[in-house]
Amino acid sequence: MNSHPPNHEHIDDQMVKMEVNLDNIPGEWLGYVMDLLFEAGANDVFYTPIYMKKNRPAILLQLLCSLENVTKMKDILFKETTTLGVRFYPLTVHRLERVFIKADTKWGPITVKEGILNGQVVQRAPEYEECKNLAQLHDIPLKQVYEQVWKSLDTKE
Amino acid sequence: MNSHPPNHEHIDDQMVKMEVNLDNIPGEWLGYVMDLLFEAGANDVFYTPIYMKKNRPAILLQLLCSLENVTKMKDILFKETTTLGVRFYPLTVHRLERVFIKADTKWGPITVKEGILNGQVVQRAPEYEECKNLAQLHDIPLKQVYEQVWKSLDTKE
Amino acid sequence: MNSHPPNHEHIDDQMVKMEVNLDNIPGEWLGYVMDLLFEAGANDVFYTPIYMKKNRPAILLQLLCSLENVTKMKDILFKETTTLGVRFYPLTVHRLERVFIKADTKWGPITVKEGILNGQVVQRAPEYEECKNLAQLHDIPLKQVYEQVWKSLDTKE
Amino acid sequence: MNSHPPNHEHIDDQMVKMEVNLDNIPGEWLGYVMDLLFEAGANDVFYTPIYMKKNRPAILLQLLCSLENVTKMKDILFKETTTLGVRFYPLTVHRLERVFIKADTKWGPITVKEGILNGQVVQRAPEYEECKNLAQLHDIPLKQVYEQVWKSLDTKE
Amino acid sequence: MNSHPPNHEHIDDQMVKMEVNLDNIPGEWLGYVMDLLFEAGANDVFYTPIYMKKNRPAILLQLLCSLENVTKMKDILFKETTTLGVRFYPLTVHRLERVFIKADTKWGPITVKEGILNGQVVQRAPEYEECKNLAQLHDIPLKQVYEQVWKSLDTKE
Amino acid sequence: MNSHPPNHEHIDDQMVKMEVNLDNIPGEWLGYVMDLLFEAGANDVFYTPIYMKKNRPAILLQLLCSLENVTKMKDILFKETTTLGVRFYPLTVHRLERVFIKADTKWGPITVKEGILNGQVVQRAPEYEECKNLAQLHDIPLKQVYEQVWKSLDTKE
Repeated sequence: MNSHPPNHEHIDDQMVKMEVNLDNIPGEWLGYVMDLLFEAGANDVFYTPIYMKKNRPAILLQLLCSLENVTKMKDILFKETTTLGVRFYPLTVHRLERVFIKADTKWGPITVKEGILNGQVVQRAPEYEECKNLAQLHDIPLKQVYEQVWKSLDTKE
Repeated sequence: MNSHPPNHEHIDDQMVKMEVNLDNIPGEWLGYVMDLLFEAGANDVFYTPIYMKKNRPAILLQLLCSLENVTKMKDILFKETTTLGVRFYPLTVHRLERVFIKADTKWGPITVKEGILNGQVVQRAPEYEECKNLAQLHDIPLKQVYEQVWKSLDTKE
Repeated sequence: MNSHPPNHEHIDDQMVKMEVNLDNIPGEWLGYVMDLLFEAGANDVFYTPIYMKKNRPAILLQLLCSLENVTKMKDILFKETTTLGVRFYPLTVHRLERVFIKADTKWGPITVKEGILNGQVVQRAPEYEECKNLAQLHDIPLKQVYEQVWKSLDTKE
Repeated sequence: MNSHPPNHEHIDDQMVKMEVNLDNIPGEWLGYVMDLLFEAGANDVFYTPIYMKKNRPAILLQLLCSLENVTKMKDILFKETTTLGVRFYPLTVHRLERVFIKADTKWGPITVKEGILNGQVVQRAPEYEECKNLAQLHDIPLKQVYEQVWKSLDTKE
Repeated sequence: MNSHPPNHEHIDDQMVKMEVNLDNIPGEWLGYVMDLLFEAGANDVFYTPIYMKKNRPAILLQLLCSLENVTKMKDILFKETTTLGVRFYPLTVHRLERVFIKADTKWGPITVKEGILNGQVVQRAPEYEECKNLAQLHDIPLKQVYEQVWKSLDTKE
Repeated sequence: MNSHPPNHEHIDDQMVKMEVNLDNIPGEWLGYVMDLLFEAGANDVFYTPIYMKKNRPAILLQLLCSLENVTKMKDILFKETTTLGVRFYPLTVHRLERVFIKADTKWGPITVKEGILNGQVVQRAPEYEECKNLAQLHDIPLKQVYEQVWKSLDTKE
C-alpha cells in the first residue's frame, strides 16, 4: 500500500491505466464522457486519434486512476461510451513532492505549484485557473499574466 | 486459463498487446499489413501517428491478440513490416456479456449486438456490415438505416 | 454581399479561413484562446496536430469567420498566441437551410436541428446542450437520451 | 478550360477542395463515406484528426475533385455525413506526365507508373494492387515483391 | 509586388501554399525532404498525419513560400518525394513588425524577437538557438534559461 | 539479467517504457528534450499528439530504455519538461539478430542492416545517414540512392 501523503516525492504503485478503442461514437459524446470521468475521480483522461480497420478514424480513450476507483470508471465507460471491453494495464508512477507558493503580480497574487526532486525545485507551474481569472478580470492577455508571474519569481539557483 | 465462453461478462487475462514503431515503411504497405494481422486472428489492430527523431513522421502499430496467437503475429510483423524489434505488454480485459437481437426496419431485419453489465443492457450496436448492405441495396443513406434501427428498438428502461 | 438570412440554403462567400502555426505555446493557453475566439464571433475554431522543423510537435490553429470579424480575430491571435504572422484564405460555404423541431422524450422535449437540401430533410441533429442537461438532471447516460430522441422522431421517407 | 489530356505534364485549374468538420458522426460511417466519394469520382479523399470546442475529438474530411463533380460530392456529404455546411477552396494542381512501363519479377510482370518532369523520369511507383495480388498468390511478403521490382528496373541516370 | 521590407507590419500577398499527400514514402525520407525545402528558401514546412484510402496512414506535406521560390520547391517535391502532383493555394499573410532586443541573463545576453501590432509590443520570443547554446554551455535546463530571460525583461505595460 | 549480446535474436525483459503527458510546454522545448534523452541512452523517444481536459492539445512523450538508464531519463524529464509525475510500464522486447552487409552503388558502398528471424533474412534496411551523405555529396535525390541499393542487393530467396 502507498502510505505516503500525495504531496511528497514518492513511488505510487496503486495506479492503473484503462483503455478503450472507440470507432462508433460521435465526438460530441466524448467531451461529455471526459467530464464525467474527471468528476468520478480520474487522475487523468486523454484522447489519441487512431486509425482502425475499414478506414475508420477513431479515438483511443486512456485514463489513469487509483485502484480504488476502477469500478466507478468502468461503469462510466460501459454506460456512456459504445465499448464492449475495457483494457487494464498496471503501472507505477514516480511523483515529485509538491509545494505551493505565491507569486505577486501587479494584479494580485497567483499560486505557483513547485515540484521538488531530491530537495531541488525543478518545476514551477502557475495555476492556470487563477491566471485565467486575472486575465479576464483585467482584460489583459493571458500570456501577460504568466510573464508577470515569471518576472516576480526569484530565479532558481 | 480463461474458461469462460467469450460471450459472457468476464475478465480475460490471456491477452497481450504488441507494439512496433515504424519510420521507414510506406503507408500503402501498412493497409495491407493490417488485413494480414486480422486474418491471422488479431482481436484488434490500430495505427497512431507519432513523431520520431530526425523529424520523421511515423506510425505506432498496436495490436491486441490472445497469447496463443503471439507467434503468428510476430512473424507477420517481422516479415511484412520493416521493424527489428517487437514490444509486448501484459494486459487484462474486462468484456461485457454479448447478446444478439434483431431489429426490424422497413427494408428488412438488422442484427443488433447488445452488451450487458450486471444484468443490464448498456450497449446496443447495429451490425455495420448489415446496415451497409441494406443501404447499398436500397440506395439510401447509411445513417437513415441506423435511424430506422434505433426507431424500431424499444428504449431501455 | 450575402443577402440571404443565415437559416436558408445558400452560398456564403463572405467567409475567410485564418491559420497560424504554433510551436512555442503551451497547450493550456490554447484552450483559453479557443474560448476567446468563439466569444468574439468565430464560426468555428479547431486544432490540428502538426510536426514542424527541429523535431517540434506543434499545433495548426484554424478558424472560420465572416469578413466583418477578421480584425477582431487577428487581434486575439496576435495578443494571446505567440505567432508573428496570420494567414488568410478565401473560401465559399454552401449552407443547408435549417429548421428547428421538437422531439418528445419521457424526460421532456429536445430541440432537433434539421438540415434541408432541395426541400428534403437530410440532417437531424439533437441539440447537445439540451440532451446533456436532461442526462445530468435525470442521472441517465447521455446516449440513452439520444436514443430516446431518435425513437420519438418519425423516420424520414 | 484545361485542354491537356490527363497523362501529360500540365497545370490543372479545374479542381476544387471541399472540406467539412465532423464532431457528431461515428467513425464507422466515415469509412463508408470515403468509399462512396471515391466511387462518385473524387480524385482524393482523406481524414485529418482535429480537436473542436467542448473537448471534442473530431475529423476534418477533405476531398479533391474536378469542378464538374462538385454537385455529386456535395450531395453525398450532406446525405451521408452530419454536416450542415460544406466549404470550397479553389486550387491549382501541377501534374507530372505519366507513363506506364512493365517490370519483370520472377513471379510475373508488374506495372510501374513513371512520373516525368521536364523530360526526366523522377517517379517510379509499382502498382500496389498488382504487387498485392502477386504477394497473396505466391504467399510471399509484399515488401519482397517491391524489392524484386526495384531490382529489375534499370537505375535512372 | 510587395514593396515593404520584411520586418515591418504589412500584408504580404506574394505567398503560396503548396501541398502534397504522401502514402507511399518512408518517414525517414520526409525528415530529409524538410531540410532540403528549408535550405531552398521555404518560409515554413510542416507535416500533418492523415488517413487515406485502403487503410493507409499517410502524411500531408504543406509548405509556404514566396511566389519566386515556387519552381525550386516544386522540383524538390517531385524529385525527392513520391508524388505525381502538387497543389497550390493562394493566400495572404499579415505579418507583425519585428524588432530585436537583448535580454541579460547571468550566463550572458539572449536576443528576443518582439512583434509589434499598432505600435504595441504583443510578442516577445527568446531566440531558441541562443537559449539552447547557453543551456548546453552551462549544463543547465533549457527552461531555466527561458525563465531567466523572462525575469530580466521589463513587463509590458 | 539479459546475458545475450545485443545483436542476436533474443527476448529482452530488461526494458521499461516511460511516459509523461505534457500540456504546458512549448513545442520548441520538446525538440531539445528528445535530443537530450537520446544522448543519455534512450533506445527510442517519440511524441504522440493527444487531447487533454479544457480543450488542450497536448503531447504524450514516450521513451524506451533499459532498466539501468531509468534514473538518468527521469532526471531529464523532471528537469527539462514541465511534468510532476512519470509513469513506468514493464515490457518485453523480441529483437531480431542483426547483421551488417555492404551494398555497392555507383557512388560508393552503403551499409545495409539485415534482420534475421529463425535463420532467414527478413529485413534489409540501408543506413539512412550513409545514403543521405551520398545524396548530398553527389547532388542526387535520396530516393535514387535507395533505389541503387535495392538494385545492387541480391533478391531474397
